[in-house]
Amino acid sequence: MTKAACIGGGVIGAGWVARLLLAGVDVDVFDPSPEAERVVGEVLANAERAITRLVDAPLPQRGNLRFAASLEEAVSGAGLVQESVPERLDLKHRVLQAIDVAAPADAIIGSSTSGLLPSDLQQGMTHPERLVVAHPYNPVYLLPLVELVGGQQTSAETITRATEIYLHLGMKPVIIKREIEAFVGDRLLEALWREALWLVNDDIASVTDIDDVIRYSFGLRWAQMGLFQTYRIAGGEAGMRHFLHQFGPALEWNWTKLMDVPDLNEALIDRIASQSDDQAEGRGIRELERIRDDNLVAITRALAAQQGGAGWGAGALLRQHEQALRDGAARHADPADLLTLTSGNVPEEWIDYNGHMTEHRYLEVFGYTTDALLEEIGVNADYVASGRSYYTVETHIMHLGQAIAGDSYVTTTQILSADDKRLQVFHSILNRETQELLATAEQMLLHVDSNAAKATPAPEAIMRRVTELARTHSALPRPDSVGRHVGQRRS
Amino acid sequence: MTKAACIGGGVIGAGWVARLLLAGVDVDVFDPSPEAERVVGEVLANAERAITRLVDAPLPQRGNLRFAASLEEAVSGAGLVQESVPERLDLKHRVLQAIDVAAPADAIIGSSTSGLLPSDLQQGMTHPERLVVAHPYNPVYLLPLVELVGGQQTSAETITRATEIYLHLGMKPVIIKREIEAFVGDRLLEALWREALWLVNDDIASVTDIDDVIRYSFGLRWAQMGLFQTYRIAGGEAGMRHFLHQFGPALEWNWTKLMDVPDLNEALIDRIASQSDDQAEGRGIRELERIRDDNLVAITRALAAQQGGAGWGAGALLRQHEQALRDGAARHADPADLLTLTSGNVPEEWIDYNGHMTEHRYLEVFGYTTDALLEEIGVNADYVASGRSYYTVETHIMHLGQAIAGDSYVTTTQILSADDKRLQVFHSILNRETQELLATAEQMLLHVDSNAAKATPAPEAIMRRVTELARTHSALPRPDSVGRHVGQRRS
Repeated sequence: MTKAACIGGGVIGAGWVARLLLAGVDVDVFDPSPEAERVVGEVLANAERAITRLVDAPLPQRGNLRFAASLEEAVSGAGLVQESVPERLDLKHRVLQAIDVAAPADAIIGSSTSGLLPSDLQQGMTHPERLVVAHPYNPVYLLPLVELVGGQQTSAETITRATEIYLHLGMKPVIIKREIEAFVGDRLLEALWREALWLVNDDIASVTDIDDVIRYSFGLRWAQMGLFQTYRIAGGEAGMRHFLHQFGPALEWNWTKLMDVPDLNEALIDRIASQSDDQAEGRGIRELERIRDDNLVAITRALAAQQGGAGWGAGALLRQHEQALRDGAARHADPADLLTLTSGNVPEEWIDYNGHMTEHRYLEVFGYTTDALLEEIGVNADYVASGRSYYTVETHIMHLGQAIAGDSYVTTTQILSADDKRLQVFHSILNRETQELLATAEQMLLHVDSNAAKATPAPEAIMRRVTELARTHSALPRPDSVGRHVGQRRS
Repeated sequence: MTKAACIGGGVIGAGWVARLLLAGVDVDVFDPSPEAERVVGEVLANAERAITRLVDAPLPQRGNLRFAASLEEAVSGAGLVQESVPERLDLKHRVLQAIDVAAPADAIIGSSTSGLLPSDLQQGMTHPERLVVAHPYNPVYLLPLVELVGGQQTSAETITRATEIYLHLGMKPVIIKREIEAFVGDRLLEALWREALWLVNDDIASVTDIDDVIRYSFGLRWAQMGLFQTYRIAGGEAGMRHFLHQFGPALEWNWTKLMDVPDLNEALIDRIASQSDDQAEGRGIRELERIRDDNLVAITRALAAQQGGAGWGAGALLRQHEQALRDGAARHADPADLLTLTSGNVPEEWIDYNGHMTEHRYLEVFGYTTDALLEEIGVNADYVASGRSYYTVETHIMHLGQAIAGDSYVTTTQILSADDKRLQVFHSILNRETQELLATAEQMLLHVDSNAAKATPAPEAIMRRVTELARTHSALPRPDSVGRHVGQRRS
């Protein structure tokens, strides 16, 4: 898909625009509101900041953004048309029918509606089979979930194609089998919201208390496992049935509050707004947005490091997306040159108090580069599992330049020398845009029997590849800093 | 507080035992069940594994665990008595009254009850003023929240003292102003749980779908900001009032499902249990517990790295706790010796595919050690903000031993040479228990004008301290590997 159209440019629409552009898709926006360009610009700036810190893989060239003069112009040539206009059925009918008439025959039409049923939205469309509800969560450029809900006339092919499209954008499509108002996520949120309003209304707890209860207990749990899996574990070896039998009686308790709808009158609104101001502790909305996004990036990357690097939950999704991006990026294949094994973007948590990429993160990148080199020569997961590996025994790092958050980097690797046990390598990290040399690492690796924890000759298959690379690289210029000791005078 | 008593040793009671022991408090447990020792042992093993990966600060000496022969023996000499027996008012009355009679006069009595009111629990106690509900969340050794709820007879002093006790254990006490069944957290969970049961009952979504909706959207949000703060940001510059006015009408919608209690009959139980089995994908409970704990540790540490290292939410709480632990730990103060500037435990996410602490984490520890050295010589946050700092320009690392997850480490630092611009240092990382030398780093630091990005002489105040340390350290043996280049033959 090379082009998408976003109809409606509010916070949700703008979030879609950002996610699509950063995935390399050209986007035409149509929204009659004079605020649309400003909102899209602000959301896009937040999104760029977040994505370069989230995704440690080469990002595709950003798509082109255009504000179309009409809906028809916007949807022309689009593979996906995402509708995000206000929640009014009559308005959505007009817009969806206009999209339906003007969009290419093979376009998918996704509606961001949070509460209207797809079967109702489909009324009056000529090609209702291509409409699907695709409901995202704010911030759309960062939270992965998109609920996919087909209406009675939605085709199975539409669901399949929509799933692929949103997966390609790094999202997590969850197909909701049967349509119901507010689908799943917002129904769950609504139930909890009502109870929370009662608690504030009855002065049981303040807005800060309730939020702290959430983010210091089940909020932490739910970033990685949901309600049911959490309870399964709580049921212990006795299992889910045991848990449910224990829990069953509690449902009969007199939870009177849950039966009623609180009166969201001015007095309650004032109380909530005032407690919310206290909670904000003077931070403005922009600042809170940035903190939120940095936290979400950090949490996602933390989950991505789990399970031996394969990731868990939203982290596993990120890892799969990064791999897809790497597979799609051009690899420097000329065997007569230095290897370019890794590239990525500098995430926020790599930044130290000097405002620069911190020392040990350079070694982290060098470490990934060595891992990639080892894969190249056949030292993969199976080889390591067989009880042999290469260990790094010595490293000499030169810090030459600085990198800041969001900078794009690339590495080069040269084999300096090799025998049946030793592998001496030289890595460089460069700023991908400016080609500025940021740091170098000369390393000595030793081939070991990991169980015996001692050096041992590498087998033929590995040595064949090592020797081939070493011979090629010996023809290349040898970096000046090879063989330096700390504090040695520069020549 | 040197000793606590835990009455009741199920999952919650055992979680309290673990948290207390790992905080250095002796614990006597009383539970007539023959399963108690096994459960406590299993939970404690999980807790030790998690805490050594979570807390990057020296942990106190573990407290002594004893299984008492009677309740009276258990509570003797205890500063805190935590009651975690089954949720039956008659049983809790008997137990709390027995505790009340036997516990020291100044002991605080905390009840882990999830649904009974403190005012009801207090009935029949001689000293009801010292009873407070202290309701935790599973896993108690890892989730920070404890809801503190006083009964009508609970004194203000009890609330204050209880808050201090639980803070000291690394927890987040949230005082709930007015008592109500299930307090805050469980009421919110109950509301959401009912809606989730309806969705499974009506076949709108499976257990896996619902959990994925949670952990790929608002679950991620709520690990760092709660319901109300999330909505405040969504309201944008127009604010909370705007959001509430927009949201208000939705509450009037016909959310019929929320009004009723679903019938948790055998058919529904079977459906949930079966879908839960599918979701587990063959993983046993122990494995799921470990994954959960590793994820929670990673998320908390990710939040701890935010806000320039001061942390956010549960991460900020961890940072404060780590600082308190460091303040409490003995510092090697002998000026005639090497500086011992940092220590900690190897967290799970530092482990590579070889099962060992990965290369770049050594440099991370060396980096913290350098930061601590710089603080020692007066290069603190204010100094850096004044536009000067020390940058590392060259590093030589020797990898000599291996560390695994949970290992305890300590560093030593020697100044090798110094002039007005250059500072040459030698760090070592040792296994704290075995004193095995794991790695060394020789580094050259340069004093710079950060704005001009060039070297500049350090001021008198800094040089005074540097020269003093350098002179002391010059009397110490110089490590053999000083001045090595990569691949140099060992002498």
